[in-house]
Amino acid sequence: MSTRPLIAVDWGTSSLRGARLDAAGQVLESRQFPRGIMTVAKGQFEAVFDACFGDWMQAPEAFCLISGMAGSQQGWQEAPYCPCPAGFEELAGALHWLQAGRMAIVPGLSCQHHDGLPVPQHDVMRGEEIQIFGALTLSGQRDATVVLPGTHSKWAQVAAGRVLSFRSFMTGEVFALLSQHSILSRTLQADAPWHEGAFVHGVQLAQRTPSVLSSMFATRTLALFGSLPPEQHPSFLSGLLIGEELRAMARPGSAVLLVGSAQLTQRYTVALHALGMDSQCLGDEATWAGHAALAQPWTHTA
Amino acid sequence: MSTRPLIAVDWGTSSLRGARLDAAGQVLESRQFPRGIMTVAKGQFEAVFDACFGDWMQAPEAFCLISGMAGSQQGWQEAPYCPCPAGFEELAGALHWLQAGRMAIVPGLSCQHHDGLPVPQHDVMRGEEIQIFGALTLSGQRDATVVLPGTHSKWAQVAAGRVLSFRSFMTGEVFALLSQHSILSRTLQADAPWHEGAFVHGVQLAQRTPSVLSSMFATRTLALFGSLPPEQHPSFLSGLLIGEELRAMARPGSAVLLVGSAQLTQRYTVALHALGMDSQCLGDEATWAGHAALAQPWTHTA
Repeated sequence: MSTRPLIAVDWGTSSLRGARLDAAGQVLESRQFPRGIMTVAKGQFEAVFDACFGDWMQAPEAFCLISGMAGSQQGWQEAPYCPCPAGFEELAGALHWLQAGRMAIVPGLSCQHHDGLPVPQHDVMRGEEIQIFGALTLSGQRDATVVLPGTHSKWAQVAAGRVLSFRSFMTGEVFALLSQHSILSRTLQADAPWHEGAFVHGVQLAQRTPSVLSSMFATRTLALFGSLPPEQHPSFLSGLLIGEELRAMARPGSAVLLVGSAQLTQRYTVALHALGMDSQCLGDEATWAGHAALAQPWTHTA
Repeated sequence: MSTRPLIAVDWGTSSLRGARLDAAGQVLESRQFPRGIMTVAKGQFEAVFDACFGDWMQAPEAFCLISGMAGSQQGWQEAPYCPCPAGFEELAGALHWLQAGRMAIVPGLSCQHHDGLPVPQHDVMRGEEIQIFGALTLSGQRDATVVLPGTHSKWAQVAAGRVLSFRSFMTGEVFALLSQHSILSRTLQADAPWHEGAFVHGVQLAQRTPSVLSSMFATRTLALFGSLPPEQHPSFLSGLLIGEELRAMARPGSAVLLVGSAQLTQRYTVALHALGMDSQCLGDEATWAGHAALAQPWTHTA
């Protein structure tokens, strides 16, 4: 069996990251640049890629996969979404080749939710799909609820190694909007340290309140009535919003595979635990593991 | 029976309105100034009041009630919230007198929700309480669900003429935040005309989707997939958020008393109708009717 060196690139909205991997999928070297797609003019993607990773591509038989927003309408070239259900095979079959057999953009995933209405609602991800497949590889699981916290959190249902469907939540973005621009911002101490007790209080309230649109107003009245020290308000609001995700998606007794930054996965772990659920956490390593697993048909040839 | 002229003032965050009423509660004259409490420095409230309504107060035996944010910590003088359940008697008993028997600030209402947790959540209103009592007076109802749409919508449960409890929803503010500052703002046409079909679609989706934090992301994918004309997206998002309020609070088969601007009460009427519910709408007249009813023990003496 011969192997080819893998150049794995995650090109997001605000950052560009790359790693050189050996045949076993181990990261030999990694680089990060502040060259997210928002900083790159149309027609300049190839030049930026060459400047950042051109030397790596000089290696004989180098093979490159690029995930993330590079495949969006605003990116290098548009790689149409791969519809769910989708596993490794569907994703590999939908690669958008920049250079046949040598360099490809990984498409994002799309799915539809009818929710009992005639017109379907679409949901999409770009970049998270490679983390999901990496997390499955690393954890050895083929059936899981995979959660990727963030600006637009994703909850994906995986069965037999295939993503059946997923839902996005604007949790991180709504937290930022409320903290920075709403009436709550007048009393929220944005730089206050995280307070686990206030966070869990928010998570628990989210399970029992009629609507998150109403409970978020409680962060305002906490300030009026002094019933929670001001430095705990951001943690309470964070708990309310993450708790709303859990109210909608978490199934008590089931386990969750969390993929993301240590700070965010810790919060979700605490929230899940407060509802009696276990979780396993993975970080950046899931991205590179996903690239390695997806690249195998090309990097590991008979 | 002797009567005294009533000067009714609604002093809000961004505007100052007043009306001179006759003994029957009819508005003889009204004035509006861009002098909300945010424009008035501490210590200057009396001077602003005199400049705007001093001539009206010259009338023999003039009696004045001031509702709204003038009674907040940032207002003229703080009028502590009157706790629910509260009817005319409790509210009248909790008036904050600026001049005994002649001029008073109407307190707001507060209530607590335990939602099964040891620490109660507080909810508050200032100014809406007078609209609620005015709406009850005008409609002749003593048992009702009264809804006041707005930046922070209020849903109040009224029985035997007393407000038992209420909940605030940050619906209007969240719509503004999403329209102006979120990723959705990139594709939302803020000035597009209202589209009833898209609005009702949003209302219906809100009844069936796991979470509003997720469904609001659908406004983004509608743009990506072109499944709804761009000029309909704001109406769809408005329907999603107002629909979330209704999902949490509306009880099919019951009627709702709507108090607010014609534009907003029309939207809620359409949303309620889509869920098989009836409504009755009232506008500004509810504010002055509430003042007249609350003032009766002082303006109509034996």
